[in-house]
Amino acid sequence: MIKVPRGTQDILPEQSYKWQAVENIIRQTCNVYQYKEIRTPIFEHTELFTRSVGDTTDIVQKEMYTFEDRGNRSLTLRPEGTASTVRAYVEHKLFGQPDQPVKLYYMGPMFRYERQQAGRYRQFVQFGIEAIGSADPAVDAEVIALAMDVYKKAGLKEIKLVLNSLGDSESRNAHKEALVAHFAPRIDEFCGDCQNRLEKNPLRILDCKRDRNHELMAIAPKLTDYLNEESATYFEKVKTYLDALDIAYEIDPNLVRGLDYYNHTAFEIMSTSSGFGAITTLAGGGRYNGLVEELGGPSSPGIGFAMSIERLLLALEAEKSEIEDHSSVDAYVIALGDEPKIAAMKVLKDLRQAGVSSDMDYADRKLKAQMKSADRKKAKVVLILGEDELANSSVQVKLLATGEQQLISLGEVGNKVQQMIREEQQ
Amino acid sequence: MIKVPRGTQDILPEQSYKWQAVENIIRQTCNVYQYKEIRTPIFEHTELFTRSVGDTTDIVQKEMYTFEDRGNRSLTLRPEGTASTVRAYVEHKLFGQPDQPVKLYYMGPMFRYERQQAGRYRQFVQFGIEAIGSADPAVDAEVIALAMDVYKKAGLKEIKLVLNSLGDSESRNAHKEALVAHFAPRIDEFCGDCQNRLEKNPLRILDCKRDRNHELMAIAPKLTDYLNEESATYFEKVKTYLDALDIAYEIDPNLVRGLDYYNHTAFEIMSTSSGFGAITTLAGGGRYNGLVEELGGPSSPGIGFAMSIERLLLALEAEKSEIEDHSSVDAYVIALGDEPKIAAMKVLKDLRQAGVSSDMDYADRKLKAQMKSADRKKAKVVLILGEDELANSSVQVKLLATGEQQLISLGEVGNKVQQMIREEQQ
Repeated sequence: MIKVPRGTQDILPEQSYKWQAVENIIRQTCNVYQYKEIRTPIFEHTELFTRSVGDTTDIVQKEMYTFEDRGNRSLTLRPEGTASTVRAYVEHKLFGQPDQPVKLYYMGPMFRYERQQAGRYRQFVQFGIEAIGSADPAVDAEVIALAMDVYKKAGLKEIKLVLNSLGDSESRNAHKEALVAHFAPRIDEFCGDCQNRLEKNPLRILDCKRDRNHELMAIAPKLTDYLNEESATYFEKVKTYLDALDIAYEIDPNLVRGLDYYNHTAFEIMSTSSGFGAITTLAGGGRYNGLVEELGGPSSPGIGFAMSIERLLLALEAEKSEIEDHSSVDAYVIALGDEPKIAAMKVLKDLRQAGVSSDMDYADRKLKAQMKSADRKKAKVVLILGEDELANSSVQVKLLATGEQQLISLGEVGNKVQQMIREEQQ
Repeated sequence: MIKVPRGTQDILPEQSYKWQAVENIIRQTCNVYQYKEIRTPIFEHTELFTRSVGDTTDIVQKEMYTFEDRGNRSLTLRPEGTASTVRAYVEHKLFGQPDQPVKLYYMGPMFRYERQQAGRYRQFVQFGIEAIGSADPAVDAEVIALAMDVYKKAGLKEIKLVLNSLGDSESRNAHKEALVAHFAPRIDEFCGDCQNRLEKNPLRILDCKRDRNHELMAIAPKLTDYLNEESATYFEKVKTYLDALDIAYEIDPNLVRGLDYYNHTAFEIMSTSSGFGAITTLAGGGRYNGLVEELGGPSSPGIGFAMSIERLLLALEAEKSEIEDHSSVDAYVIALGDEPKIAAMKVLKDLRQAGVSSDMDYADRKLKAQMKSADRKKAKVVLILGEDELANSSVQVKLLATGEQQLISLGEVGNKVQQMIREEQQ
């Protein structure tokens, strides 16, 4: 038997209605905030990610699905959505649109070859937004507000926002120098990756999973202490706007994010639910003022976040918050005999045209077995069509909640059942 | 500059609302017909497709994106959705559910490395349904009805349904023998692929793009003439049900479909619009009674179809049928000054909480420039907040359609604007 590839999953109907519900909330929220959907391909030229995500990151070094197509192009299944969105912003010259920032959202599968563990899949679904073309700190607040709003509307209560500033490049360089001075004397106590990072990208050391408990980590120079005045002012404004929007936050000077392109605002939203697992980050994002230029466009500041739909659903479970399933059948049609079956299919057509979700038995089983199916499917109404009913051009309609039964003529069945279902729902 | 990979496309906001609209129609229709969503991974073990789609098909031989992951597994980006759905049906033992058929739908990207031409992408989106676990010809009619319904609801008028029966394996074997006898004497006049097909799978010869005009093609033995009684009776029933549902069809004995797993009912839906290009097939499907067994499950008959969303949108264009864009902004907030801007963000928050889609300027431009933005974005209402309004804890609200203007207090702005928008829409 061929199985689903390791690290991936099938989402079956007993779960998929939850995904649909969350995605509807996301689409509605994005519309209300006026972020519009962009869809980029599942794979990109590999160079896009080495140049944007950064070639010293774990993602690029260890986790990408990279392959050659039949034309010998090196392609990579996208590990995240920002690079592709910025690539599209440059390629389609969206920087030329009169209204900036251009506000975009995406939703779809991403791919990282990671070790398997709870809440981590090699294919996972991310929803993310990007506001590109404005350096207004009010946009940072809006982006964060949208993420918090999605969680709230989905029913999450136990979440917190963690905030940091990575500053501009001047601030970051000053901090980098301090980091090198801090770690260099004892770098041989760190893992090989960290030893490489010291020269190439010392900030990444703070992100190391292996060395996270080394005593030098906790007392490492903090970026917040190296922010220049412009960066500090920017950060203050972001906080002012968040305060205005009643959005609470914690400052965490060690929040650096696992991608190279961030500066200024960086944030994560975590679950604080005691039922949640070890990985508590639900969403992360930040500002990336150099990325558009890095990918060949004009200097255009941007900010965005990405959230995992898998973890949102896990967090809802941890909080024991249920998503209702509205996809069960309204009407179940039971045909008894060959001729009634043809008539039943017409009834089914009328019901469906009237917008009544409806189904019938396709196994030609006995009445009792079909009634059991109707029960299992939680049908609200059962329609029974035998030779007698057919002779009278009508159908028995039974409301299962009350047992109430009536004969309805075949010509009226669509409208009448639609009305019954509506009344039942009120 | 890094570009989108060849044969793929970005779908930008000016197009994505159309995709969303079509997908909503699809989800609603599937719910009404009680098909439930399944989501399978973007890639599968390569063997899944060689075993199901068939290793003599063009798809498997020439068009698959196949690669090895970091654990040396051979994976393939899915070229179609039926194999994955059937794999999931087997793997999760859905054949054990009391109500058969299990009715599933999927929607998402598929991948085929094809020569580039209009309406053909290497990444394309398919919507498809599968009803697995019933050999009732009424299911065939339902499956076809759902496809036709989706097109109708999307606004397509110029379409036709083409139908054929491929019969059961006994009928197919009789036909195969006749094909071999027909083509063998002159097989050297055919392409190398066809010469291979003669032994392995002579039915595929009828599907050849290069030899389609060879004189032996038109007079080749037709499957319909080799149907045994059981297969012929089955086909008659399918037609009876389609007639009952008022679904018109043409019979085309040459319709064989490009995948190996079909038997009995095969169908295509084509655009008949004169504005449409050379490739007129919008959707195709058929019955695959042996596929579940082939993939390691118990004998479970199935039927389904797949339709391309790209071609549905192209067909709509060809018919000059428009999809309306409902995603434009309702309210545009204009702040004049630093303090008003903080207040404006609170107003924005209130509007959004009231479900009013709203936006503001993030470039601190002058009133006139901001009014122009509001016009461009087709805002219905503009809210203006300067120092004076702020001093009065209120905001100027202007209905752009009439020019009507009123002062509304900040505490009431969410509800009042929501009401104005509603009245405006009626």
